[in-house]
Amino acid sequence: MNRQQLRALLDEVRSGLVTPESAHDRLFQVLRQSPFEDLGFARVDHHRPTRQGFPEVVFGQGKTPSQVAAIAERLVSAGHNLLVTRTTPEAYQAVTAVVARATHHELARCITFDQGTASRGRGTIMIAAAGTADLPVAEEAAVTAQLMGNTVDRLYDVGVAGLHRLLKEHQRLSAARVVIVVAGMEGALPSVVGGLVDVPVVAVPTSVGYGASFGGLTALLAMLNSCAIGVSVVNIDNGFGAAAVASSINHLQ
Amino acid sequence: MNRQQLRALLDEVRSGLVTPESAHDRLFQVLRQSPFEDLGFARVDHHRPTRQGFPEVVFGQGKTPSQVAAIAERLVSAGHNLLVTRTTPEAYQAVTAVVARATHHELARCITFDQGTASRGRGTIMIAAAGTADLPVAEEAAVTAQLMGNTVDRLYDVGVAGLHRLLKEHQRLSAARVVIVVAGMEGALPSVVGGLVDVPVVAVPTSVGYGASFGGLTALLAMLNSCAIGVSVVNIDNGFGAAAVASSINHLQ
Amino acid sequence: MNRQQLRALLDEVRSGLVTPESAHDRLFQVLRQSPFEDLGFARVDHHRPTRQGFPEVVFGQGKTPSQVAAIAERLVSAGHNLLVTRTTPEAYQAVTAVVARATHHELARCITFDQGTASRGRGTIMIAAAGTADLPVAEEAAVTAQLMGNTVDRLYDVGVAGLHRLLKEHQRLSAARVVIVVAGMEGALPSVVGGLVDVPVVAVPTSVGYGASFGGLTALLAMLNSCAIGVSVVNIDNGFGAAAVASSINHLQ
Amino acid sequence: MNRQQLRALLDEVRSGLVTPESAHDRLFQVLRQSPFEDLGFARVDHHRPTRQGFPEVVFGQGKTPSQVAAIAERLVSAGHNLLVTRTTPEAYQAVTAVVARATHHELARCITFDQGTASRGRGTIMIAAAGTADLPVAEEAAVTAQLMGNTVDRLYDVGVAGLHRLLKEHQRLSAARVVIVVAGMEGALPSVVGGLVDVPVVAVPTSVGYGASFGGLTALLAMLNSCAIGVSVVNIDNGFGAAAVASSINHLQ
Amino acid sequence: MNRQQLRALLDEVRSGLVTPESAHDRLFQVLRQSPFEDLGFARVDHHRPTRQGFPEVVFGQGKTPSQVAAIAERLVSAGHNLLVTRTTPEAYQAVTAVVARATHHELARCITFDQGTASRGRGTIMIAAAGTADLPVAEEAAVTAQLMGNTVDRLYDVGVAGLHRLLKEHQRLSAARVVIVVAGMEGALPSVVGGLVDVPVVAVPTSVGYGASFGGLTALLAMLNSCAIGVSVVNIDNGFGAAAVASSINHLQ
Amino acid sequence: MNRQQLRALLDEVRSGLVTPESAHDRLFQVLRQSPFEDLGFARVDHHRPTRQGFPEVVFGQGKTPSQVAAIAERLVSAGHNLLVTRTTPEAYQAVTAVVARATHHELARCITFDQGTASRGRGTIMIAAAGTADLPVAEEAAVTAQLMGNTVDRLYDVGVAGLHRLLKEHQRLSAARVVIVVAGMEGALPSVVGGLVDVPVVAVPTSVGYGASFGGLTALLAMLNSCAIGVSVVNIDNGFGAAAVASSINHLQ
Amino acid sequence: MNRQQLRALLDEVRSGLVTPESAHDRLFQVLRQSPFEDLGFARVDHHRPTRQGFPEVVFGQGKTPSQVAAIAERLVSAGHNLLVTRTTPEAYQAVTAVVARATHHELARCITFDQGTASRGRGTIMIAAAGTADLPVAEEAAVTAQLMGNTVDRLYDVGVAGLHRLLKEHQRLSAARVVIVVAGMEGALPSVVGGLVDVPVVAVPTSVGYGASFGGLTALLAMLNSCAIGVSVVNIDNGFGAAAVASSINHLQ
Amino acid sequence: MNRQQLRALLDEVRSGLVTPESAHDRLFQVLRQSPFEDLGFARVDHHRPTRQGFPEVVFGQGKTPSQVAAIAERLVSAGHNLLVTRTTPEAYQAVTAVVARATHHELARCITFDQGTASRGRGTIMIAAAGTADLPVAEEAAVTAQLMGNTVDRLYDVGVAGLHRLLKEHQRLSAARVVIVVAGMEGALPSVVGGLVDVPVVAVPTSVGYGASFGGLTALLAMLNSCAIGVSVVNIDNGFGAAAVASSINHLQ
Repeated sequence: MNRQQLRALLDEVRSGLVTPESAHDRLFQVLRQSPFEDLGFARVDHHRPTRQGFPEVVFGQGKTPSQVAAIAERLVSAGHNLLVTRTTPEAYQAVTAVVARATHHELARCITFDQGTASRGRGTIMIAAAGTADLPVAEEAAVTAQLMGNTVDRLYDVGVAGLHRLLKEHQRLSAARVVIVVAGMEGALPSVVGGLVDVPVVAVPTSVGYGASFGGLTALLAMLNSCAIGVSVVNIDNGFGAAAVASSINHLQ
Repeated sequence: MNRQQLRALLDEVRSGLVTPESAHDRLFQVLRQSPFEDLGFARVDHHRPTRQGFPEVVFGQGKTPSQVAAIAERLVSAGHNLLVTRTTPEAYQAVTAVVARATHHELARCITFDQGTASRGRGTIMIAAAGTADLPVAEEAAVTAQLMGNTVDRLYDVGVAGLHRLLKEHQRLSAARVVIVVAGMEGALPSVVGGLVDVPVVAVPTSVGYGASFGGLTALLAMLNSCAIGVSVVNIDNGFGAAAVASSINHLQ
Repeated sequence: MNRQQLRALLDEVRSGLVTPESAHDRLFQVLRQSPFEDLGFARVDHHRPTRQGFPEVVFGQGKTPSQVAAIAERLVSAGHNLLVTRTTPEAYQAVTAVVARATHHELARCITFDQGTASRGRGTIMIAAAGTADLPVAEEAAVTAQLMGNTVDRLYDVGVAGLHRLLKEHQRLSAARVVIVVAGMEGALPSVVGGLVDVPVVAVPTSVGYGASFGGLTALLAMLNSCAIGVSVVNIDNGFGAAAVASSINHLQ
Repeated sequence: MNRQQLRALLDEVRSGLVTPESAHDRLFQVLRQSPFEDLGFARVDHHRPTRQGFPEVVFGQGKTPSQVAAIAERLVSAGHNLLVTRTTPEAYQAVTAVVARATHHELARCITFDQGTASRGRGTIMIAAAGTADLPVAEEAAVTAQLMGNTVDRLYDVGVAGLHRLLKEHQRLSAARVVIVVAGMEGALPSVVGGLVDVPVVAVPTSVGYGASFGGLTALLAMLNSCAIGVSVVNIDNGFGAAAVASSINHLQ
Repeated sequence: MNRQQLRALLDEVRSGLVTPESAHDRLFQVLRQSPFEDLGFARVDHHRPTRQGFPEVVFGQGKTPSQVAAIAERLVSAGHNLLVTRTTPEAYQAVTAVVARATHHELARCITFDQGTASRGRGTIMIAAAGTADLPVAEEAAVTAQLMGNTVDRLYDVGVAGLHRLLKEHQRLSAARVVIVVAGMEGALPSVVGGLVDVPVVAVPTSVGYGASFGGLTALLAMLNSCAIGVSVVNIDNGFGAAAVASSINHLQ
Repeated sequence: MNRQQLRALLDEVRSGLVTPESAHDRLFQVLRQSPFEDLGFARVDHHRPTRQGFPEVVFGQGKTPSQVAAIAERLVSAGHNLLVTRTTPEAYQAVTAVVARATHHELARCITFDQGTASRGRGTIMIAAAGTADLPVAEEAAVTAQLMGNTVDRLYDVGVAGLHRLLKEHQRLSAARVVIVVAGMEGALPSVVGGLVDVPVVAVPTSVGYGASFGGLTALLAMLNSCAIGVSVVNIDNGFGAAAVASSINHLQ
Repeated sequence: MNRQQLRALLDEVRSGLVTPESAHDRLFQVLRQSPFEDLGFARVDHHRPTRQGFPEVVFGQGKTPSQVAAIAERLVSAGHNLLVTRTTPEAYQAVTAVVARATHHELARCITFDQGTASRGRGTIMIAAAGTADLPVAEEAAVTAQLMGNTVDRLYDVGVAGLHRLLKEHQRLSAARVVIVVAGMEGALPSVVGGLVDVPVVAVPTSVGYGASFGGLTALLAMLNSCAIGVSVVNIDNGFGAAAVASSINHLQ
Repeated sequence: MNRQQLRALLDEVRSGLVTPESAHDRLFQVLRQSPFEDLGFARVDHHRPTRQGFPEVVFGQGKTPSQVAAIAERLVSAGHNLLVTRTTPEAYQAVTAVVARATHHELARCITFDQGTASRGRGTIMIAAAGTADLPVAEEAAVTAQLMGNTVDRLYDVGVAGLHRLLKEHQRLSAARVVIVVAGMEGALPSVVGGLVDVPVVAVPTSVGYGASFGGLTALLAMLNSCAIGVSVVNIDNGFGAAAVASSINHLQ
């Protein structure tokens, strides 16, 4: 139960739509949960939706399939949406044993199970990607943003060396409430997009490139030095992080 | 004239509050301006308010006082708000010769002249700073945000080694629509703040520190690797950039 | 025989608990050992317990299983405790052929054989870890500290983005004589812990993270720049080194 | 009032040495202080002695002389010891106006005023420095350690290229309870010292050197990779930090 | 005398425009020069025009005014064009004492004296610069290119955050035979220009920027990773080097 | 159809060699193509030959064999030359299913299919390589340059530690219109070649080396700092990029 | 035939030990060899013994077994000693097919075939290594030095954290004409050795270590900053290079 | 008294040239000196000539003029040669007050006083420098080498972009017993020189350059990766260190 849902519930009580008894039951169910649950190797944080507007996300990298499945089971049985990032087919197998209807997004390397608990964002999050090789990161952002309750529009393969491909879509860019720009190599796309729109731009450098791209460092540095205003940056290949920022913006009232 | 102002004008025409003639005059005055003006050493961009919601900002570093003054004069006489960043007392002297009532913000190293053209943001931008030495960057953010039409709340000297100073202000943090967090050294404050609020956090690393802080690189890297969600990052010491991001978020409807 | 044991022996001689003849025999056995033993590829250092309070530790990385087993056999037959770090199942197989009852700590990647020669530390060493992925390093520290004669308390998954998980354990933190803090990503946990306790904090950066974490470099730099006092740092992923520092502190009289 | 002083006071009450009334008065005086005091540009933390065993230290770099003096005045009038690091003759002038008997340690670049509030450490802190150019950092450590209640022994100009200078002082090294080792250039001294003693070694890299010393980075990296056990590291040139670590070790009971 | 001039001379001899005697005299004068002249601190290379198409250039940085003047005097009296880069007003004073009519280009920090010996390039070299602060580097390129016999077209303040300023000049860009692109910060301009033209693009990163621009490193890396084809890169701030490359291209027949 | 071909066609119309009807048909065929074709994961750019003189190149790295084949099929059926770089035997198998006569250059890791659409370059491109291990990069440059319509001359294993091997080929070097120099390790070859010729030199650093060569970074930095004039640099291992630059130079009229 | 051998031959002619006819035949055989032999992928340099005192060495990394074998065959059949470094068992198999009696040094990863052509060095080359993991690099140096005609003394596992192991061998160190010191981690051994001897010390950093050793960079930087005099450094893991330097010193007359 | 002088003295005793009494007196005078002398801020090492063949050198950087003078006085009055490096005119003034006839080498930034105690080296040390700006470093090497008893030959301004200047001096290069090569920028000169001679080459990178030379880092890395054999490297700008290495080589018997 996030802040908005709590406020809505209380409003419904005041207006008589929900009885105090019913509200009490729902709140009690939340509150009797310990704020976190100790699995030995992890402390599952059940109050994060209240504090942060979205349940704890399982960062799959460096966890065994059975660890992922155990955390997933606890989150789902507590009624939360499930998002596992940086995951593997093996982890997906393990998760389906406890959350049968979970979905595997292969390109995005994510597992999700949507219990419909996310509140709706207000506008559209545009996800623009410079090249084909940036798609795994762009899709991680797209899957994350959708599960967090946002409408997503995708604009792929619009790198700056062929500007006409981007300029032709100026209309779609302008319709977004926030734009995520994903690019590797020289990382120039956020600067160009940032010059075309007046909404916040979240830039995601990717490790796409070779030679002196240094695993995405070049794109990261370029984005941090963007001469366009309204651009902020997240970690290399961090599609999830960009979507979380964009979603928190898109849920502002 | 930015996008919101244009839309408002047209709404007023439709509703009869403004006559078509009057609207025509105001629009004509804008449109007859060349989109940019060539001063030889610079092309002053007069349509940026329309595209970006805020007029061109003068980055003072590396410009002579007379260059700064020349650009300032063009911007102000075109009716724009004026913001000069990274400036000097010498540049301020030169600007006052052409914009007599311009204000010098010494700690923030900014010059401003407010012609009241900014539309109002919807909520409050909180600016939290870890230490006393981070104040010039925090103030650059504050001055920028205010000139861009935002209400600003300041929370200074709340570094993570004395958590009680921060936790005591949880209320104020939660009341903000977007939080700018300014920190040098190990750059840990955005992670802690990001865990306490559910609104967007814009992190600004500063070059405050010594030894292996490497001019702010350590704080920058730490912020990019934040384990908190909803945190994005701008360049080292870039208080202006953080404010521009925060203002674009705060002006979303 | 370390310094404390030597002093104790001499005290026992003075007080008549041990006869000079018996003491002579024990000392002679130690002294007739060459200070080191040349295995061709390695010089096993038998006097290290006297100089350093703990026998030579076998750094397993880059050594063949048979090299590890050969050194292990020499150390154990000389009566020392055995600790092999950064080891493999193959090396463990080889060691069990010569030290049948040796223990394999899989998560910690260590082999130990405890001959009870370590003197007891005076207080508790707390080992706090930020996330699940930091556990191999934390466990290397725990195994090492225990073999060196220390009582260990573990506090895992208490990253700074969910401060309540840490603050709830303030009591346990305050009860420790020295705290080892293990964290990757932005490495902020030592700063927060360092602000809560007045005992020495030994920070261990881990290579956990992605993108601009650069194999633990970000966490390392952040910890070196900690604004909290009383924090010192060891090498990336060096759980053993942190435990050695903490143990030398915990054995001070 | 730090933790030890509080405990001592309560012991004295129990044993009748101090009346409850007197104890109440002393405690009341402490408790009525706000935990921190807001000077606008800084929040002076008055409860740090209780939490951390030592009052807040004023990091002089980046503060104006009047800011330094204002904080110094607040700390001294609250009865705390005063330590200003990285300071200047100008700041010292400003401080003497409000704390007339403050001392300026020029080589160490520190200002101190000792009100005798520090509890005594148990043993000696040895400060070893590799070369003459490392002395400002070594002296910052020495001044800090002394003000924190420790006995200090200095061993200067004992770099590893002339081992006999160090080996000759083996006795003094062995008598210390903790050793601070200060070195620039290749930073090898902590490894050699760490191999000679069995007490904790706190290594301080300095920015002394030229060419590929990169402002102390080389010494820092070397110290982090020390093959000796019991060595931990603080930031480049951070003599204060090393002394704080050493003092917290030296005050363990 | 460069290769083209030599070929032209021999053609004129064949066609009777120049007598063998006259050609002999001119060639003799060249050949009797020692290939280089030893000034003690420098070996002035008189055959470079023959080998490289342009006389030796005096890199002013790190040379005293009198050293610059001495070399300048030798070059001019041997009939070469003179170009001093990275120079100072003091050096210009010294040069005018020996080459009275030398020109000082203050913004470009160059001294030139044109003896009309450069052969004409075939087309136009366009010099595009992203911002006002990039002008000293752009002008160093312009002065160099002109002295080497090229026609130069300047296009300044056309950074990618305001694409319309660049796109409006597509015509001029397309008319160039080679384009030099000068940019700091995120260094994105060469990628955009490279996507618009089919002639060679020589990219010059500048040290303009702050924070994580790291003295031009970010722009350098971005340009090396350009996704546009036909882009090659020279050293940071190396306007001279870019002009030399562009001129060698523009002189190809 | 590139710019030169368009101009030639129009010239032929004016001179009567081609009827307006025929020209119209050819132009119509080009123009009715959408400027780019959306394959979902990629936007194939069909107008690049017109803008850039060469069709879109398929960067094979990070694309699946079926993605490579799909793009290849679209390019070839549109009448373009095909070049796939950084490719694998698996991708070649997939491409032959749709472009049966495509060629695999194993050492160069390229796939090509030449439909004879490239216009001829004017001179020879010399490709000089320092050592045997640099050949894959040199061959990528050679294959690219040839497909782009250039004559190529190869000069391999002429590193600077055996200068006589290079000096013996001075004649061939001087005959080239542009020289590509490929070298790893210390990257000194471009400086030496640049001192011997007066045509443009395009330097390609390779990742050949070990230890402190840092994946080609050392060679890259050395080439950027070349003391020879007329040298520009492309990304590490970027043989394709060097050939594209050289070809654009070699096609200048 | 190297310089010393040539001089010796001429001396023998003068003294009548060798007839001019015989000398002529031997010299003719050398001189009729082309200075290098072009194998297509490599230019085998047959005059290197004359120029450099040792035949061309085959750097095995990045060459196929058949390339290695082909070069080996040419060198051996021309009468040179054979040294292949950084090689593999597969390459050794290929070499034995053409040089049946070649030797494989597995730890050193070298192949050698000694035809007795090296002149003898004058003294002993000591090779000291800090730890067991440094042995492959130390042995590469040892194998190289021996094949180049030098007497080698090995001193392994003498790291600085156990100084007594090194000091005990002071005698052997002092007997050497040149000392190669091999060390990873903090790279402190050359500084200590350099302070004990007055002969040249060649330091070889190794990639042994973890965390912030950064593949040997830390050891490299430490060695370059050595406070001992008489120390020079070669590339990381470059045992061959160190031996070549030491051998050239040891062959000075 | 260095090792050679000691041996010579003993030989003279054996042969009767020196009486045992006289030898005793000279040795006694040496031995009664404390091995080092404690000045408080420095320990002057009087036995270094015996251990290292040359007295302690005063590294002037970071020492006050009076510290330099105090150490100089102690060294000279003990009969040693004096060498102060990285010094200033102010330090020279202070030194002349205590060592009246000391010499100031301005370009080399050294102070020397030669008491004739150095034994003579056997051959010539060639010092080759790439450019005029490298001369301060080259001269530091020359002054050091001469004071250490070596004959020096200088070859300046022979950078690789004008190979003929170097090749013309092949004779002089070949006559040297050891070659010091000083170069900045791309640092290619040692590779070329190393390919021309068969004696040891000591490479000194300088901080000469701009942009991506990064204070000499580029030249340093290039030299470490030299493809020539027989090349070792010292720290950036370390002319003194190179001379010390070269002198120790040149003094081998």
